[in-house]
Parts: sequence; C-alpha cells; structure tokens
Amino acid sequence: MDNFTFYSPSFFMFGKDTENRAGELVKRFGGSRVLIHYGGGSAVRSGLIGRVKKSLENEGVYYAELGGVRPNPRSGLVYEGISLCRKERIDFILAVGGGSAIDSSKAIAAGVLYDGDFWDFYSGKKIEKALPVGTILTIAAAGSEGSPDSVITREDGMFKRGAGSDALRPKFSILNPALTMTLPPYQTAAGITDIMAHLHERYLTNTKDVEVTDRLIEALLLTMIHEGPRVIADPENYEARANIMWAGMMAHNNAVGVGRSQDWNSHNIEHELSALYDCAHGAGLAVTMPAVFRYVYKHDVMRFAKLAVRVWGCQMDFDHPEETALAGIAALENFLRSIGMPLDFAGLGAKKEDIPKLVESLCYGDGRDGSISGFVTLNAEDCTKIYQMMV
Amino acid sequence: MDNFTFYSPSFFMFGKDTENRAGELVKRFGGSRVLIHYGGGSAVRSGLIGRVKKSLENEGVYYAELGGVRPNPRSGLVYEGISLCRKERIDFILAVGGGSAIDSSKAIAAGVLYDGDFWDFYSGKKIEKALPVGTILTIAAAGSEGSPDSVITREDGMFKRGAGSDALRPKFSILNPALTMTLPPYQTAAGITDIMAHLHERYLTNTKDVEVTDRLIEALLLTMIHEGPRVIADPENYEARANIMWAGMMAHNNAVGVGRSQDWNSHNIEHELSALYDCAHGAGLAVTMPAVFRYVYKHDVMRFAKLAVRVWGCQMDFDHPEETALAGIAALENFLRSIGMPLDFAGLGAKKEDIPKLVESLCYGDGRDGSISGFVTLNAEDCTKIYQMMV
Repeated sequence: MDNFTFYSPSFFMFGKDTENRAGELVKRFGGSRVLIHYGGGSAVRSGLIGRVKKSLENEGVYYAELGGVRPNPRSGLVYEGISLCRKERIDFILAVGGGSAIDSSKAIAAGVLYDGDFWDFYSGKKIEKALPVGTILTIAAAGSEGSPDSVITREDGMFKRGAGSDALRPKFSILNPALTMTLPPYQTAAGITDIMAHLHERYLTNTKDVEVTDRLIEALLLTMIHEGPRVIADPENYEARANIMWAGMMAHNNAVGVGRSQDWNSHNIEHELSALYDCAHGAGLAVTMPAVFRYVYKHDVMRFAKLAVRVWGCQMDFDHPEETALAGIAALENFLRSIGMPLDFAGLGAKKEDIPKLVESLCYGDGRDGSISGFVTLNAEDCTKIYQMMV
Repeated sequence: MDNFTFYSPSFFMFGKDTENRAGELVKRFGGSRVLIHYGGGSAVRSGLIGRVKKSLENEGVYYAELGGVRPNPRSGLVYEGISLCRKERIDFILAVGGGSAIDSSKAIAAGVLYDGDFWDFYSGKKIEKALPVGTILTIAAAGSEGSPDSVITREDGMFKRGAGSDALRPKFSILNPALTMTLPPYQTAAGITDIMAHLHERYLTNTKDVEVTDRLIEALLLTMIHEGPRVIADPENYEARANIMWAGMMAHNNAVGVGRSQDWNSHNIEHELSALYDCAHGAGLAVTMPAVFRYVYKHDVMRFAKLAVRVWGCQMDFDHPEETALAGIAALENFLRSIGMPLDFAGLGAKKEDIPKLVESLCYGDGRDGSISGFVTLNAEDCTKIYQMMV
C-alpha cells in the first residue's frame, strides 16, 4: 500500500426533510452572507429553493442567489458568480443541485479569494484557500458533495478540466434521497453510471496487495448493481435512492481509494465528449468505459477477472482468465444497457469524423504533452483507437 | 434507512515513517504545549517515544509526558492526567499507543475542560468540549483513532463504561503499519477480533434495506478474514498489516454503520469480563460473540444466513436457513480458534461462579435498569444463559 493522507471533514446530514436544516448548518459553519447557487427552474418549481430560503431567513442569514448552472458547467457563470460574491460580500456559498451546481460553487469559492483568473486552478495551480461551501444534493452521481474535486468547462476552446484541493471539500452536505425521486430515469441512470465509473477508476490500480480498498470498492459496485435497477423500476423507492446516495458519496470521497494508484482515463476520454456534444457525463461514461476496459485489460488480466468474479458473479475460468475478464466487461455493458444508457457514439450524438478533434483536445489541449496517464499511459494513437471502438 | 448525521473530520496520515511528522501535525492543529500520553515501556524501548519527542522538538513544541496507561485503562490515571494538564497548561494531547492510550487521552481531554468529575461523561452526560487529541497508533484494534468513542474502567466498583462525542474525534491520527510488527501474536489476534466485533455489532441491525452498509461491513470482514491469517503467519508482512490497519479505522469511524440500528451487546457483555479479569478485550470478544450470536440468531435468521453466505462462503440452505446461519457462526468460531483466540471462560481465566456478579454489574451496575438493549434486548436471565454458554 502506498503512503497516503486522507481528510474528509465534511459534515453529512442525511435523510428526509433535512433541507430545512440548511440555515442552521450555514450558521454552524460560519456563514452570514450566503450565495445560493443552483441550476434550472426545477429546483425553484419544486419548492426546494423556497424551502432553503425560508430556512436561511429563519436563522437571520442574508442571501443572494445565482441560478442558471447547466450540466457540464461553464466558466462564464463562474466569472459571474465571482463578481457577484465580491459585490455582495458573500462569505458562504450554498450549492443546491448536483455535481454541476456544486462544482460551479467550488470554482467560485476558490476564485473569489484569488486575484488572478480562476482558470489557473483548472490548469494545475494549487488551490490554497476558498470560501466555505455547503451543498444540498439533488442527484446521486458526481460525488462532489464529499469530494475535494471540481470540473469546469472553459468556453474558450471548450476544454473540460478538473481541479482538486482539500480547501474545496464542502463544510456540510445535506443528502435527502427524496429530493432525487423526481429525476427523469435517464438522469438517474446517468448518475448511477457516474458513481460506478468513480469506482472503476479506483479499482484499476497498479498498486499490489490493496485488499481492503479492493473489497470496499467491490461492495459499493455490488450495491449499485442491486439498487440501480430497483430505482429505475420504481423511481419513488426511497430505500433504493438512499442506498445509492450514500454509495455515491462513499465512492468519491476517496475513503475507498486511498493508498493505491488510480486510473481516471475513462473520465478524461469522456470529458472530451461531454465538452463537445454536451451529452450527460454519465451517459458518456457508459459509452467510454467498456471501450477503454477492452483496450487495456491485457495490462492486468487478473485484476479484470477479479472484478468479473467478485462483482459480476462470473465463474472464474482458471485456464483462460482473459475470458473471465472479458465476461466481466460484457456484464458491465449489459447492465448499462438494462438501465437505459447508450453504448455507442450514435447514442450520444457523437460523430466519427470528430475523432481527430477529440484526440487533439484530449492529448494536446490546454498544454498536455501528447498522452494521458493512469492504469495504462495512452497516447494519441491509443486514444484514436479507443474512440473508434465506440462508433 | 434511518436519518443520520456523519462527521469524521480527523486527518489521517498513513504509511512508513509517518510518526516523524507528529510535530508538524500538532502545530497544524493548533498545539503548542503537548501531553504525550502512552502505555508501558515498549514504546520507549523501541525508540518510538524518542522519535516523537524529537519531532516535537524540531517544531519547537513544548511537551510533558505521562506513561503507564494499561490495557483496560483506569480512571486513576485519567485523574492524574487531568491534574498534570492543568498544572502544565497543556493545550493538546498526543496519544501514543492503542485504544487504551487513546481512550485515556480522550477522557483526560474532556476532563480538563470540565469542573465536575470526568466520570459523569461515562455515566451519560453529554461531552460538549474537549482539548484536541492527536494519535500515533501502535495496534490495529479499537478504532479509537477515527472514532468519537472512549471506554474507561472506574476503579471504584470496576465499572467499564463508554462515552462518545464528536468533540472526542482525534484531530489527526498517524497510522504506520510497521509500528504494529513487534506486537506479540496474541495481541495482534486480539486486535483482529476487536475489529471484527466492531463490524458484527454494526451488521446486527433491525433496520431494513440497508444494502450499502451491509456490503461495506461485509467487505471489511472479508478483508480481515484474508489478511488476519497472513499477519499471524508472518508478523512482518507490511502489506497485510496495512490492510488491517485501514480496515480497523474504517470499521469504527462509523462510515459503514450510519443509518441503521446497531447492536453492541457483545461489547457490553464482554466489558464485564475484561473489567473483572483484566483479560484482553479482543480475547473476551472471541469468547463472547459466538455465544451471543447463537443465543439471538433466531431473532433474524436471514440476517445471519446472509452473513454466513456472503462473508464465510457458506452454501445457502434454502430449505433450512437456520442451518446456514449456524454454519456461519461456527465458521467465525473456527476462524478465531485458528488465529489463537480463546473460546471459553477457561481461556480467559474466568470462573463460572462469578456469573451472578457479572450479570449484576452488567444489568444493574452504575444505574442500569435490569437489561441491555441492542439487536435483541437482553435481561438478567438472558445474560446469565449467555455467560453459561461460554463456560
């Protein structure tokens, strides 16, 4: 096991009606002037934003608001948020929504306390400080409610890039599974896929002898395989929603990924798709993961076989472990299909002729050196072949 | 799933040589005058205490020291520590050792800031504040390095009781698996048993439909079953030590126990044994758990069958699930025997004729009302029968 540090100081409040405690938690964590940052009209129409405002008013907390965060959140709104926070002397940002609202809030939080362009942080500059952020989660997917990470798309060039810092970990996150019941099935399935991708990216390691994190990742994948279809079949199944919501947080706060190298190439390869086509990130991952895994599985056949046996219940073929490895990838694909996810370019509105552009941005864009590293280092030729497998 | 809150703000530094970072971490978390609190001479003789002092000196941090913490830590040394902290104007307590040193440190930390008798907190009074505590762990067992809990034995009456508060969660914990290599095999095995008990106490729930935490608990048990025998066979196996150490923290910081009722009757029943006979807590649990489980399994046969199938690899007997449930308990017992744990009173130096005294203290001592609650509520008659099963 590699040496590591782990720090997850977020306070989680989980369960029914917990969004009404937002004001109390903002005060507990030092906020007095809040920016409520959220996405489209659904959070307003459902009454959620109204309840949140009421909760802040009950505690005498001042608030401003900035809606309009979109999936694959953009830099433009981040700049707007930074200006607004400075004008309003905001000292706490409350994200209401999914990964997009949270990631945009984190970007604003870091940008407000920085004199330069916030994009510097998404090009590799270390984030030393940020305004405190709290979250009210409305979709189990990105895990940003418990993670130090944020992903933003820069409109100039459409680069989708990530930044990470313990300073971005939310002070608190409110997780009410009932808030996720009104999601369309496609969004629910995309969230399930994103969670499963976070687990696969951690499972694909080059570190030996990491049984504890292997087992924990497998446990969360088994949970998703059990609960995912239940929630697709019955969107109002609170218990299934609850299991998925806690699994989504645990999948990405890194308690199950410590002490081991990780992959993240499926995410990197997908980010180009959602940046260019504005598809749902989870749907993009459903298309990307099986292609990447079939391209790299020979790098460590036994790791893929272990996943196949322990998670997908495949029988181990001791004479031909590579067949077990491939059976596991096929089982993942079947699962993703069963919950309504696309499995090829057509399902994302992606085009074969764009592959050179995707590869150029992936391998060379925004200062990259011609390859992406992870479980296996992939160069432009590798990435071209992987995108071709998705057509 | 039940509503819950979860807060684990401890900073974990894990890996080789990390104890040399103690001074840096004490400063980071605000300590300037430290009490180093530890157990017997082994931490001194091994040079560990010397390295810790050097690390503090390098950062210009003042320290006092208080050794002599013993297994099943006693109230006497807590009172002594409280006096010493006040006299020395200590603002940070650094525990070096296992659960005993850490629990004693937590008790001192709460007691220093309290005008009354610290024992009030172990009789049910809420702990609102405590001095910050950091830990350097030398045995994977109690999980106190990541938990809000502390267990102390009051010498007057020999009551062994627990207190819990988020104020007791360590600010940081340093986990170097190499520090655990010199433990005698019996102590290593007792630690493994304690970790497995923490997992069983959480697994035995009356809350329905908690797949995510069921799976996570099973994952940690599977890790212990795999790594435990490896470390008993080869005490210097760093990787096995590392897997067990992270599993031990995860087993007890409650990330895998949220949103569900828990048991803790095996712990309660054991505490009387280690209070009276001063046996190793883990060894006491090895004797206690199989008896308790055989006494209560009919309360939820399918839960015990699930544990048997998923964790112990038993075949499900669909016609006779109770046989599967019992096969799982037998598998636990065989495992505990294989790592050198005792399985009956004789192995602990316990005596049949003391059973009335044990039951009296357990069910009525220190203000209890005649029963203990958990997975199943047990009265004095139940507890008598359970102790008799251990003879």
